[in-house]
Amino acid sequence: MLDAALRDGTANRECVFELFARKLPNDRRYGVVAGQGRAMEALKHFRFGDDELEFLAQQRIVSDETLQWLADFSFSGSIRGYREGEAYFPQSPLLEVHGTFAEGVILETLLLSILNYDSAVASAAARMVSAADGRPLAEMGSRRTGERSAVAAARAAYIAGFSATSNLEAGRSWGVPTMGTAAHSWTLLHDSEADAFRSQIAALGADTTLLVDTYNVTEAIRTAVEIAGPSLGGIRLDSGDLPVVVREVRELLDDLGATETAITVTNDLDEYAIAALAASPVNSFGVGTSVVTGSGAVASGMVYKLVSRRAEDGSWVPVAKASPGKASVGGAKVPVRRREDGIASAELIALGTEPIGDHDDRPLYVDYVTDGEINPAWLGTEGVASAREHCAMALAELPRTARRLGAGDPALTTYFVHDDGSLNRA
Amino acid sequence: MLDAALRDGTANRECVFELFARKLPNDRRYGVVAGQGRAMEALKHFRFGDDELEFLAQQRIVSDETLQWLADFSFSGSIRGYREGEAYFPQSPLLEVHGTFAEGVILETLLLSILNYDSAVASAAARMVSAADGRPLAEMGSRRTGERSAVAAARAAYIAGFSATSNLEAGRSWGVPTMGTAAHSWTLLHDSEADAFRSQIAALGADTTLLVDTYNVTEAIRTAVEIAGPSLGGIRLDSGDLPVVVREVRELLDDLGATETAITVTNDLDEYAIAALAASPVNSFGVGTSVVTGSGAVASGMVYKLVSRRAEDGSWVPVAKASPGKASVGGAKVPVRRREDGIASAELIALGTEPIGDHDDRPLYVDYVTDGEINPAWLGTEGVASAREHCAMALAELPRTARRLGAGDPALTTYFVHDDGSLNRA
Repeated sequence: MLDAALRDGTANRECVFELFARKLPNDRRYGVVAGQGRAMEALKHFRFGDDELEFLAQQRIVSDETLQWLADFSFSGSIRGYREGEAYFPQSPLLEVHGTFAEGVILETLLLSILNYDSAVASAAARMVSAADGRPLAEMGSRRTGERSAVAAARAAYIAGFSATSNLEAGRSWGVPTMGTAAHSWTLLHDSEADAFRSQIAALGADTTLLVDTYNVTEAIRTAVEIAGPSLGGIRLDSGDLPVVVREVRELLDDLGATETAITVTNDLDEYAIAALAASPVNSFGVGTSVVTGSGAVASGMVYKLVSRRAEDGSWVPVAKASPGKASVGGAKVPVRRREDGIASAELIALGTEPIGDHDDRPLYVDYVTDGEINPAWLGTEGVASAREHCAMALAELPRTARRLGAGDPALTTYFVHDDGSLNRA
Repeated sequence: MLDAALRDGTANRECVFELFARKLPNDRRYGVVAGQGRAMEALKHFRFGDDELEFLAQQRIVSDETLQWLADFSFSGSIRGYREGEAYFPQSPLLEVHGTFAEGVILETLLLSILNYDSAVASAAARMVSAADGRPLAEMGSRRTGERSAVAAARAAYIAGFSATSNLEAGRSWGVPTMGTAAHSWTLLHDSEADAFRSQIAALGADTTLLVDTYNVTEAIRTAVEIAGPSLGGIRLDSGDLPVVVREVRELLDDLGATETAITVTNDLDEYAIAALAASPVNSFGVGTSVVTGSGAVASGMVYKLVSRRAEDGSWVPVAKASPGKASVGGAKVPVRRREDGIASAELIALGTEPIGDHDDRPLYVDYVTDGEINPAWLGTEGVASAREHCAMALAELPRTARRLGAGDPALTTYFVHDDGSLNRA
């Protein structure tokens, strides 16, 4: 496309692309958009180097003119969009990329890859945080997603309210608090379970967490308290019928005097399993596969569409496709979250140029890139910390229906607002 | 764990770890293991650099002794396992890592991340290739998975029989054939659909493929053939009720004299949608979301367990955990595929030291790393080409039940073979 557009001159047409989701996955009540900070870091380094250009040239994939354009590429347009960690709904215009067609189209796959995956994780994580009702969750799923996606997943889960990750690289590169855990191999490595526990306590102190389900849970807990004493920090359960086992384990620990010893569970948990443990004496959760795979929706289904282009006469032309089931809404947009008494009540998307904003409306766009200059506020570890804070605020503001785990309508209805003030449902 | 093991001396115990899946996802008939070549490339570069060590030191995550060990780390053990592209079944011992506990445990997450994701893609892709029954498939899902996983997905789909990818980086780094396609934005960018088609043909020739569902499919096809002539290469459909639309489009193209113009479809296809088009005049398929997300099973569920360690007296001690529902089978293993008249009939896993191999048994282990030396045969583009060839052979050898898309028992039963020759079902 780039090659043909450079050839026919349309490559330089001024365009607006929009990144949005037509619907929420699995009829959830809300989504959490994430990845913007990562996308901006990626944009900062988005260049075509010698190796890439040589490959394109050798394979004759693009013309010499296009090779030159790619060699010189550096994004000079503007990007605005929802804050990272913001709640989103069907048709929420999550990112708006404004630049030439060539600049916009070349970012499409990068932006979608990052936002689709990171938002899938953040959206699932937020539901788990909500189901855990104040008890901390650790992300432990690195091994169940691609090795680089694992770092992104730890970051996204943290933004959505998880407390920590077992992915050390996410700690290093994004400032996510890290934690570790003993695996079954630790117990199997030693001549006995008692040896394994003794060694772990010698290295990490009695307030460590011992994994107790390698052989027999009851025996392991007796051994653990015998070795560590009643001040044992915690035990971890990774198998069995958790609501039953957790109750038995709590009783046993209490009987042994280890009343302060915490119980961590980690057995293929998702938001439903966490909710089912609401009344169980669990102190913390470790979540693996389900959070890094978006709990049944690993791709958020976000798309990136050309919505407006400037005509020869300088006017903007809204454009939209009419494909059945996949129609898009033309024109640049400005979204706000309508609030009533501090509670969000609707997602309003202005199609016109008139400002909207009665009531207590909260504007949803922030600037990510202005004429090629990336706003540093959203980058690095500070960007992550501010996204996490923003997410907590945005979710607290949603109506209570948002907390329902079952399938249903979005917690907020999305309306397009026309220049004359009339509304229509998205 | 590493820290505590270095402290108590068990870090240097000689161990065997095994990577395997307890079951196939979604009751499929077979899986395709992939990622070994990528894992070996990753292993080649698996070092702890100054930035990583500084982070671990600053955060006091490990002791100084462990920091030194990490700084000096370079894998000196051995790895053998199934060839990349091989079919696998429940309990197939896909990789065996032999080294000290410290060396083995530190590779766990890296190996699992890569094999779990790449195998999920390859396993889904193989079913799609089988459903397409000889018609070519292109992988076009980069935007629906993490930006680095996208490259791995293109590679894994190619190994499993896809013909090409839209991910240029997979072409550059792994030799996967690449292709491109015009998006709806291409049509929307231009003043008219006719302008868009004219420009594309001017740039790419009449044998290009035009996307015809931006506005009205019938009109678009008439326009396309008018501009390109009856030698138009192809048209792409990305929406609508495909079995119906494809038939109508074929008739229309034939009526217009464009009898050789190919039809490509790309509308949220998975193996079931592809199978439903078996009798439709589709020439090729483009698959996005479903292949890069493993078509409903994005994590293969592979685990990595300590299965054997050497005791003080030099003897090997098989070890296994007994956790309910997650028990493992101790001891190092040697697998073969039993064949009868050229057709695979069982997965045999020898637990003992006696060689097994009657009939036409095919040994399943190859050497990936020997005493720290990585076998170059499985690396780079040559590794990919040989994995693709091997995959075609291994799948052709499976019994016909393997081609069934519906849920059911694995196409082969896995048996453990004891030293005395007795078998038991895994």
